[in-house]
Order: sequence, then C-alpha cells, then structure tokens
Amino acid sequence: MKLNARLLGLEAGGKSVVVLNRDDAEDLSISSLDRVRIGKNGKEVIAIVNTAAHLIEKGTVGVYEEIKNSLALEEGGIVDVDLAPLPTSVYFIRNKLSRRKLTYEEVCEIVKDAVKGNLSEVEIASFVTALHIFGLDLDEATSLSRAMVETGNTLKIDRPLIVDKHSIGGVPGDKTTLLVVPIIAASGLTIPKSSSRAITSPAGTADRAEVLMPVGLDLEEMQEAVGKTDGCIVWGGSLYLAPADDIFVKVEHPLSIDPLLLPSIMSKKKAVGANLLVVDIPCGRGTKVKTIGDADLLAKDFMELGRRLDIMVQCAVTYGEQPVGRTIGPALEAREALKVITGKENAPDLVDKATDLSGILLEMSGRDSGKETALEILKTRKAEAKLREIIEAQGGDPDVKPEDIEVGEETFTVHADRKGYLLWLNNSSLAEIARLAGAPKDKGAGIYLHRKLGDMVKKNEPLLTIYAERNLKLQRALDELERSHVLGVGERMEMLIHVVRERPVHKKPFLLER
Amino acid sequence: MKLNARLLGLEAGGKSVVVLNRDDAEDLSISSLDRVRIGKNGKEVIAIVNTAAHLIEKGTVGVYEEIKNSLALEEGGIVDVDLAPLPTSVYFIRNKLSRRKLTYEEVCEIVKDAVKGNLSEVEIASFVTALHIFGLDLDEATSLSRAMVETGNTLKIDRPLIVDKHSIGGVPGDKTTLLVVPIIAASGLTIPKSSSRAITSPAGTADRAEVLMPVGLDLEEMQEAVGKTDGCIVWGGSLYLAPADDIFVKVEHPLSIDPLLLPSIMSKKKAVGANLLVVDIPCGRGTKVKTIGDADLLAKDFMELGRRLDIMVQCAVTYGEQPVGRTIGPALEAREALKVITGKENAPDLVDKATDLSGILLEMSGRDSGKETALEILKTRKAEAKLREIIEAQGGDPDVKPEDIEVGEETFTVHADRKGYLLWLNNSSLAEIARLAGAPKDKGAGIYLHRKLGDMVKKNEPLLTIYAERNLKLQRALDELERSHVLGVGERMEMLIHVVRERPVHKKPFLLER
Repeated sequence: MKLNARLLGLEAGGKSVVVLNRDDAEDLSISSLDRVRIGKNGKEVIAIVNTAAHLIEKGTVGVYEEIKNSLALEEGGIVDVDLAPLPTSVYFIRNKLSRRKLTYEEVCEIVKDAVKGNLSEVEIASFVTALHIFGLDLDEATSLSRAMVETGNTLKIDRPLIVDKHSIGGVPGDKTTLLVVPIIAASGLTIPKSSSRAITSPAGTADRAEVLMPVGLDLEEMQEAVGKTDGCIVWGGSLYLAPADDIFVKVEHPLSIDPLLLPSIMSKKKAVGANLLVVDIPCGRGTKVKTIGDADLLAKDFMELGRRLDIMVQCAVTYGEQPVGRTIGPALEAREALKVITGKENAPDLVDKATDLSGILLEMSGRDSGKETALEILKTRKAEAKLREIIEAQGGDPDVKPEDIEVGEETFTVHADRKGYLLWLNNSSLAEIARLAGAPKDKGAGIYLHRKLGDMVKKNEPLLTIYAERNLKLQRALDELERSHVLGVGERMEMLIHVVRERPVHKKPFLLER
Repeated sequence: MKLNARLLGLEAGGKSVVVLNRDDAEDLSISSLDRVRIGKNGKEVIAIVNTAAHLIEKGTVGVYEEIKNSLALEEGGIVDVDLAPLPTSVYFIRNKLSRRKLTYEEVCEIVKDAVKGNLSEVEIASFVTALHIFGLDLDEATSLSRAMVETGNTLKIDRPLIVDKHSIGGVPGDKTTLLVVPIIAASGLTIPKSSSRAITSPAGTADRAEVLMPVGLDLEEMQEAVGKTDGCIVWGGSLYLAPADDIFVKVEHPLSIDPLLLPSIMSKKKAVGANLLVVDIPCGRGTKVKTIGDADLLAKDFMELGRRLDIMVQCAVTYGEQPVGRTIGPALEAREALKVITGKENAPDLVDKATDLSGILLEMSGRDSGKETALEILKTRKAEAKLREIIEAQGGDPDVKPEDIEVGEETFTVHADRKGYLLWLNNSSLAEIARLAGAPKDKGAGIYLHRKLGDMVKKNEPLLTIYAERNLKLQRALDELERSHVLGVGERMEMLIHVVRERPVHKKPFLLER
C-alpha cells in the first residue's frame, strides 16, 4: 500500500513505530502492535503499528523521528507499507510465557530486537514480567549477560588484569567508589569504572563524580583516560555498554521489579573486560536486601554467574542501615570524599568500607594484607594523587579543593527535641527528602548528618541539615520531613513499631543501582 | 511547574498521556511512565508521562488528544504540571506480580483505572501476563466480571427472562447466531444479542449481520429494537458494555494470550441482563479447544462463574473440525444463512447446530422438546418472519432476498487433482486465505466450499472457490493457498503428518471471539 508520510515531530523512545489510520490498517489486515515493512527508495525498516481513528488521515502514515531518520523521509513523501511477519523473538517471548526455558540463541534474538527497537513496550513488559515470576536460571542469566554484551560496545584495554567494583545500591550517601577507584589504580591495578546516574536515589556515582570532573566520556576517551591513569569514573550512559539494560529498566522501573539485576550488572562488567570483581551487597532494614541470609544467596548467584562469564567474583555483605559517611547529595558527597582522601576529615565508616572493598580486590589479584595496603595507599596520599590524575585525565581541575565545591544555600537544620542516643535512621525517607530538595539534578541539594547511629545527642543539638538550591524545593523537602519518620532519638528503642488499622498497601520503594 | 501546552494532534488510544522534555521531567523528579497532575482553570487530570530528549522543548508539554479534550486546551496555553502519586491500582498490580490474590475492591480499582486510561500499556501488559501465568481463580474471575460490568453501560429491558448465546469461536463460517436469534425471539423468549467484529478471523457475527442490516446501534436503539421484536443482532463496540475488555484485548492480542476470556464474556452477558446462557465450545483440531476433556473443563468454569453471577449457564461442546455450512466471509455467510432460513437451501450441519443451541435455551427456560420446537420454528418460517422483523427494527430492508447480496466478482476455484474423499480441511488456513482475500473488510470476500469432510470427489471436480472484491487481494490469497496445506483428498489418511527437521517455533494463531 502506498501512503503519504506525515512527520509527527515526536520521538518514540528509540522504538520503531508508525501510526496508521484505522481503515488503512484494516485494509492491510493489521491490528495495533502488529508490524509493517515500510520502504522508501530501496531502503526498508520494520515498524510496530499504532492505529488512530481520526487524527491520521486515510492514505497517510504517521512517522516518528526514528523511522524518519532511518529512511530520510520528508513530509508528504510516498512510502510503501505492507504487513510484515512477527519477529521470531516475539514467539520466543510467548514461549517464555508458557514457562519454556530459553536457549542462548533465543535469548540473543530477543535482546537484539529489543536493542533495535523492534519490540513493543507490551512485549517487553510481558517478557520482563514472566522473568520476574518464573525467575531466571543460571543458564538463562548467562545467556542474557552474553547477549547484552554482544549487542553493545566493549572496552579494549591492553592489560593482563582488569578489576571492577559494583554496589547493588540502596544506601544513600554511598560514595565508596570515589575512594576505591583511586586506591586501586594507585596500587597498580587497572579499574575502568563505569557508573550510573541516580534513577530513584538522590545520587548515583556518576552524579557524585561529575562534581569533580566531566563523566560523559565516550568509549575512546574512556580508553585513553584509563591508559594514562589505570582508572576512571565515567557515566555508563554514553558508552553504549550493554545498552539492552536501559531498555529493560524502562519497563522494570514502573513495575518495581528487577528480574534482570544480575545479567545487567554482569554484562556491563564483562563489556569492560573485567577479570576480578568485588560486589558490595549492603544489607539491613531500608536497603534492597533485608537479611544476611538473603545477601549470601545473592552473593552465591553473583559468583556462579561470574564463573560462567570468566569473571572471578567475591562479594562483600556490608552494613547498610544508615548512610555511609555524613552526606547525601552529589556535591555534599563529592566534598566529603575529597576531604577524606585529602586527609582533612575522617569518616570512619566510609574509610572502613572503601579499604575493605579495595583490600578484597587487592587480595584477589594476589597481594597480601589487602586492607592494610589500601589503608596505606590512602594515608600516604597516593590515593589523592591518583584521584587528581584521574580528574585531569577526564578533563577536570586536578587542583580542586573541598572548599571549591558549592553546596545549596537554602538550608534547614533539624534539632533534637530531647536528649538521648540516635537510635535509628530511615534510609528511604532520607533519600526521598534529598530528592525533593533537588538531588540529583540540583547538585548542591542534599542532607548533612550531624549525628550517626549510636551517637549521643543533647537537647537542641543539630541532628541533620537539609540543603537545597531553591527555596521552593527546600519547602517540598520540609513538607516530606514533616510527614515522614526520619530518625529516632531516645534512651532505648520503643517496643511498638506501628499499628495496622487498615489493610496495608504493599508499597516498596524501588532503588536500582546498576 | 508551569508549562506551555503543545498539541500533538495525535490520539493516545484512549490513554491519558503527556510528553515532557527530559530536563523538565528531571526537575519534577519524574521518570518515564510516572504520573503527573495536569491542571487548567480549576480542572485537573492525571496523565502518564513519556519523556523526549529533543522534540519537546524545555518549558512545553506535549499533549495528546484525550487530555486536550478533557481540559479544553489550546496550543501554547499554560498548564500546571506536578508530580502525582501512583494510583493505588498500580500497587495492586504489583501485588499480583508476587502472586497475591486480589480482593474485589482491588480488582475494581484496577479495572476502573484501566477504563479511565490511567494505566500505562506496560502496567496493563504486566497485569495480563501475571493473570496468564498464575491463572484466575473463581473469586478473581467473579470480581473481574463484576468490575467490568460496573465500569460500563447496562441494558435495561423489562422482561422476566432474558436469554443469550455465545460461542468462544475458532471455527470459520460459524453463522449459527443468525439463525438462533430469530428462532429464540420467535419462540417468545427475549435475546438481546451483542456480537463482536472479527479480530483475527474472516468474519465476526457483527460483520455477517451487517450485510443484512445496520448493526452499529447505540444502547437506546438496541433497547428499542429488542422491545419491538424480542431480539436483535448488534455490534457490541458502540454499546460500551464492559468496555474494559477492549483495553485488555489490545494487550492480549499481540501476546497471543487470553487469561480474561471468561470474565470478558460473562461480563457482557451480565451487562445485557441475561438470566440463561448457552455457551458454544467448538472442539477439535484447528479450534481453540483441542480435546473434549479440555472443553468439559472450560464448560465447568463457565457454569461455576455463571452461578456466581446469577446467570444459569449450559454449554454445548460442538464439532469444530470444519467450517459450519459451506461459506466463509461476511456476505457469503449472510447469504447462506438467509437461504437456509427462507428454506431455499439446506445446510444440515448449520441447521443441526442452530437448533441444538436453540433447543438447549428453550429447555433451560422450561419448555419441553427444545430441539424439535426449534426445528418447527425454522421450518414453518416463523424464524424467517422474525428475522425480517429484526432487520426492519434495526433499520435494514425487511424484504432482502439472498440474490440481493453481492459477493466478490474476482474468483478462483480449486479443483481436485485426483478422485477420493475429502479427508481433512485446515480451519486456520481457510481463515487466513479468506482474510487475505479481503474478509472481513471487503464483505464480498471469502470462500465457498463445494465439498465438506467425508464427501466423495471426482478428479477435476471443484473443491472450493475463493471470492475477492479486488484482483490484488485474490492474488494474495492465492499465494497463501499455494504455500499452505488447506485440504486433503485421498482414499485414506496418510500416516506421516510431517517431518521435524529443525527446532520448531511455537506458533499458535490467535482466534478470539468474545
């Protein structure tokens, strides 16, 4: 069927989509979400069909930006549109809905079509839901990891040993990576770290690092930086490493499910060529993993999947019931990390965690006394020197000082209304307040904790300060502060946690850090 | 946040959707598929957010037709946009993903939000997938049925007993309803029949009936017609009975799953106020239900769900291995039904099935000798007279004669290449060929079967004729005819069905008739 292209001037989020008038669609025996082949001057793409009753006229086809660009279409240009068969990947997805185990080839087809934009949101959502319900076995997780590597870029660095570090996230203020990368690179190992920005948290590692240096490097620039300094901290989003992940996350996030956690993490490590990996699994109330038993099970999965992918994995189950260090929010966290690495301030839990994780990597690489070595590198300022090298290699100011880093000027400090001990902190509420204050978009927004768990506090002493760049956002954060229970001060824990009077709604905040 | 509305001039398929620039979305802490509250002049709606990187400028919000109409927006008009909480129905859907049984109230919330356009395709797809995988128990099926009735129109007819008939479909050429409705209405019972158009088949009952009379009546017109004649055959699409069904079907169809089959059927029956219902379950190779055992299980589900909804149900498991009568396609089928009801032609299987189903309904209503009574009504032309009354009440020509009905002029006849018996017919291939020939859109397209199963055929005698309105479509049908195995003529069945040389792809054609 020949139709006139109507350029919609809209993106379809990377998907290959056209809109047909309902009559034309019927004429082609096409329903919504079927596929058409759309051709122009010998070029041809497959597109998913939406139908419209009124606003796309008979005889025209509404074209999103992606198709316009692939076929170089102009407004009113004539294109050939015909029914196309379903991609075989759709049949494989349907098989999964009947619980069939997918082969490597089948998984590859699905991932390839997802990356090409050939699968509709309905198909991807259904696939991800089925994976969530049935679970992935190790074979499928391996297949998915490999397929995700193969459909993206891979980093090529000529070093015998490449190490990496990952945290599954869930703890606000976790700036450990800003210390681990320079410690490890200073030790002579190579650590090409790619990180994510925050999705639902107040700061991802990429957001924190960006306060100190540019992080939006492309693959070539990343290779160059690592070649010079043995380390980097860049944003994964512009590297196109395992890009299928972004597509699945778009669906997982609104559903608050995460069946592809392991493959998505491991594929990115494989794509940078990692041989040794330490995975941080923060554990406790208010994190993703509530109990040590669950953490150990997850650790086992990581290690087994690592074996299949030729990556040696060790996991660190870490204490996650309060923020790491005293700060939450990109600028506050970058400043704290810089103060610690320059020896201007001590944050015992941050230093402990960073040297624990670094120590594990050092010992995995064959060194003795990993933790001590890491501490030594930190104390002797070799880590600081390395961080400044990395900052320079990525195009930042290597002489940056903590006091150069600006934080929000709109602040509000919460004071203790009684004396006692800081008995508990609510991670999710802290994260939510920091987000409402503007983090991660407003880099200067966040929270400073004057007290941490177990600290003694006198009446009227400050407990925490909220930072924002704009008063409007500070107010939003304060509204949330009032609504939520952020922390508890007292002599001892009270026995009653809360009373359930109505049927509770199962509401799980979704914290994903891949 | 104040934004300028940009009217996209596009429908979002009934959904409440806006498009934000990615920066604005970040400023509002919003990801794709989150919700915003969008307000103008005191009116307010909730919309699902898509984000765009380039084509929606910062400071503007792209608005689909649905939102434009609800808020009476103009191009460039200023609207308030703010983060809105997730509807509770989304939490209920997430509960279902963890296998939790849903209460009636929870189901109602989900169905209500689906109908209002407040759920994204991703959420609906995930919900439907979970229902498919876990299955619906009787409580949930009841809740869904009721919720679907409550979110739509209901027919109000003042009769003590309202009967209805439904076929789960899957057999091409099944024009039984065109006979059952006039037989039942002529018997004095009331049968307000709403039917669907074809989704993936060459003709739905509404498509067939439309050849004889208008079927696009609204609820008031339907009530009036039934009030006059005790029966009608109208298209369900403009009645807004259980409209949630259309929303779920849009997702089920591309996934080729059908977990809501029972609630969607039963809710429509409840919405017309049916007390007695006969459900036709065609059974056999090439239909939806392959074995009599499966048919009996399904029948039990229908009957139990009926009990919960105060509808007395009986099921007829019927032979479905070949088309009913000799014709496939709207005009050919309407003509055949008219010939049979006017006594000009006999189609033994069609008459048998129509009087069986009518007989069951008659006996359910307390009459004796149902089948005989039905046959009597048919033979004495009371059914014909009633059909003409119904045609007139719906605005058609009550004097229509079979020869008035035009069928496609482009034809091709397949002849036997050997003598023997017609051993098998492939329902799916026949349906596919009829569709490619133009059915149901081209009403005159379809297939006429000169022979049926078990008939003797001599070499060169005609087996079937394909009808099309346009030569181009006839050619498409002929291409498919060449590719597929439509029928077999021989002395006996050959033992080898087919050889599997490569790993087969699980490909199940989806035939839905609700």
